[in-house]
Amino acid sequence: MLIQEVCRHIQPLDATLLKQAQARLDRLTKPLGSLGRLEELAARYVAITGEVKPNIPRGIVFTFAADHGVTREGVSAYPREVTPQMVLNFLRGGAGVNVLARHAGMDVRVVDIGVDYEFGSVPGLLGRKVMKGTRNLSVEPAMTRGEAEQALVVGIQLAAEAAKEGVGLIGTGEMGIGNTTPSAAITAVMTGQSVEEVTGRGTGIDEAGRAHKVSVIQRALNRHRLNQTDPLDVLAKVGGLEIGGLAGLILGASSARIPVVLDGFIAGAAALIAVALAPSCREYLIASHRSVEQGHRVILDQLGLRPLLDLDLRLGEGTGACLGMDLVCAAIKIYTEMATFGEAGVSEKV
Amino acid sequence: MLIQEVCRHIQPLDATLLKQAQARLDRLTKPLGSLGRLEELAARYVAITGEVKPNIPRGIVFTFAADHGVTREGVSAYPREVTPQMVLNFLRGGAGVNVLARHAGMDVRVVDIGVDYEFGSVPGLLGRKVMKGTRNLSVEPAMTRGEAEQALVVGIQLAAEAAKEGVGLIGTGEMGIGNTTPSAAITAVMTGQSVEEVTGRGTGIDEAGRAHKVSVIQRALNRHRLNQTDPLDVLAKVGGLEIGGLAGLILGASSARIPVVLDGFIAGAAALIAVALAPSCREYLIASHRSVEQGHRVILDQLGLRPLLDLDLRLGEGTGACLGMDLVCAAIKIYTEMATFGEAGVSEKV
Repeated sequence: MLIQEVCRHIQPLDATLLKQAQARLDRLTKPLGSLGRLEELAARYVAITGEVKPNIPRGIVFTFAADHGVTREGVSAYPREVTPQMVLNFLRGGAGVNVLARHAGMDVRVVDIGVDYEFGSVPGLLGRKVMKGTRNLSVEPAMTRGEAEQALVVGIQLAAEAAKEGVGLIGTGEMGIGNTTPSAAITAVMTGQSVEEVTGRGTGIDEAGRAHKVSVIQRALNRHRLNQTDPLDVLAKVGGLEIGGLAGLILGASSARIPVVLDGFIAGAAALIAVALAPSCREYLIASHRSVEQGHRVILDQLGLRPLLDLDLRLGEGTGACLGMDLVCAAIKIYTEMATFGEAGVSEKV
Repeated sequence: MLIQEVCRHIQPLDATLLKQAQARLDRLTKPLGSLGRLEELAARYVAITGEVKPNIPRGIVFTFAADHGVTREGVSAYPREVTPQMVLNFLRGGAGVNVLARHAGMDVRVVDIGVDYEFGSVPGLLGRKVMKGTRNLSVEPAMTRGEAEQALVVGIQLAAEAAKEGVGLIGTGEMGIGNTTPSAAITAVMTGQSVEEVTGRGTGIDEAGRAHKVSVIQRALNRHRLNQTDPLDVLAKVGGLEIGGLAGLILGASSARIPVVLDGFIAGAAALIAVALAPSCREYLIASHRSVEQGHRVILDQLGLRPLLDLDLRLGEGTGACLGMDLVCAAIKIYTEMATFGEAGVSEKV
């Protein structure tokens, strides 16, 4: 099966390449290590890609859109029709992710992996609909195991196509009214934290709304009896189609040695699934920012990732990922464009 | 006197403009406030500049270079000749600040405000030398009051010239072997914290070196008996020429309604002096990152500034400022390029 093959194909990073990259960074005209996490990023980019003299990569943010049956429980501040409306906004270039992708020099690809709307033929939209939204996870499994696998495969294939096109940097994006609910459910199961701990206010419900959301998620977890050792089952029963697509994207990108810049909470939930399926893919992940959504901190701790930015973002779409991708490019330029002590005739440390 | 005039000319931000900008941000296709600190940045940019429909500004990083008499005490890991060597590296475009400025689309202007070296006529170098480095602050005042004023005036004039050229965003940069020592001395006096608390390892001295640096600074403070109510005296006796230039730049930019993106610890020390001279200039400051240098946290707390990035940088030169300026531009684009709910036909919150 494709998923297992891809998982087996993901290699741990090459420690020799990391050292080689750091050795070059140490010859640049700056005190040792003084560019901190930009140096880490540059070295990791080299080790992930194997490019010892990297060019600035072509980058794509994949924004997966899907609907969620659980919105029937009143867990979101926005009506369900906003999902397709925002998909059209992405395609016209008017959303936050479009603006920040242009700023960072990245392309946005919008993927309908499960929106409850017939778009017909819309230029620019990648039609990969697995189903018209998930079922209501609080009363039944959101997806069958087969549907969850299909969502993963969509992501894996998109990553493989991007790799063939020569894309060297991938960002994760999503749009799906209600999707902080499955993300919180996944986070609770995969990290062992309480639902209370990992459930936030999403797009803007109040404290009473959050309490309701906690109870909806708790009910779902009581019903489904999930086990973190079967991540595909977790994805199927309390996940979402865009979350599955993102998890597949992470696996596919990692197996093609393409670094993945994670956006916020939903991307984090997808990363928990991907890392559970293939632990080595963790080393291919770069956390762009720390979301306001409280469960995100729990995810980042579990994955051992430290975000680059702390901007109180909670929009999703891939907005934070774009800013993170911009920093990756800055780090690559540091690696390739700075003069060495020898080239510049600058004295070294006494 | 020019300095007092400029200080008097700095206005508090216009609260109406801030509100007007936030009202526009609230109509954009995203949950209210979901772009967090990018929204704050955009609103502040509008309020500072008064541009209700802002264009992406031309930005300049001013990198002031100067030497420090206190290097005779062995407070730095690098030899003094690195200051002019790095100036030449800046002019050739090979330093960290050049790379990151190009990345962010900003220009770098290199200012010799007090390097202990005769550059002669070097293309691109702004020759504004006040003196060939400060005196040894541990045994005598680093500058006379007049010299400190001259350094401030250099910065004020450069900001005024930039304003005339239509520059809309200014970043602070510096180069000066030994300059974390005067910065720590200024920070101790202006924040009331202990020297121990605000003194770090600079470009890379070890713990014994740091203890020695603390004792050198403590000796200086015991000798000079400084008072935070006379910031010009503090700057003169334990400051540096580049720190004075930066403080002047902050004052000049604020009086011309140009936002100033601060780099790290040395910029922070300059900001303490500038804010003490003209409290309203605080509102024109944007902290780009939190430096590894331990005193920087103390400065940011005192100024009530929250940094945008936490990348473990400690290079200076204006490197962090470039990344911060890039984020300011991203924020402006969010403000001007995103579609509103009305334009995009997206439903609002229920």
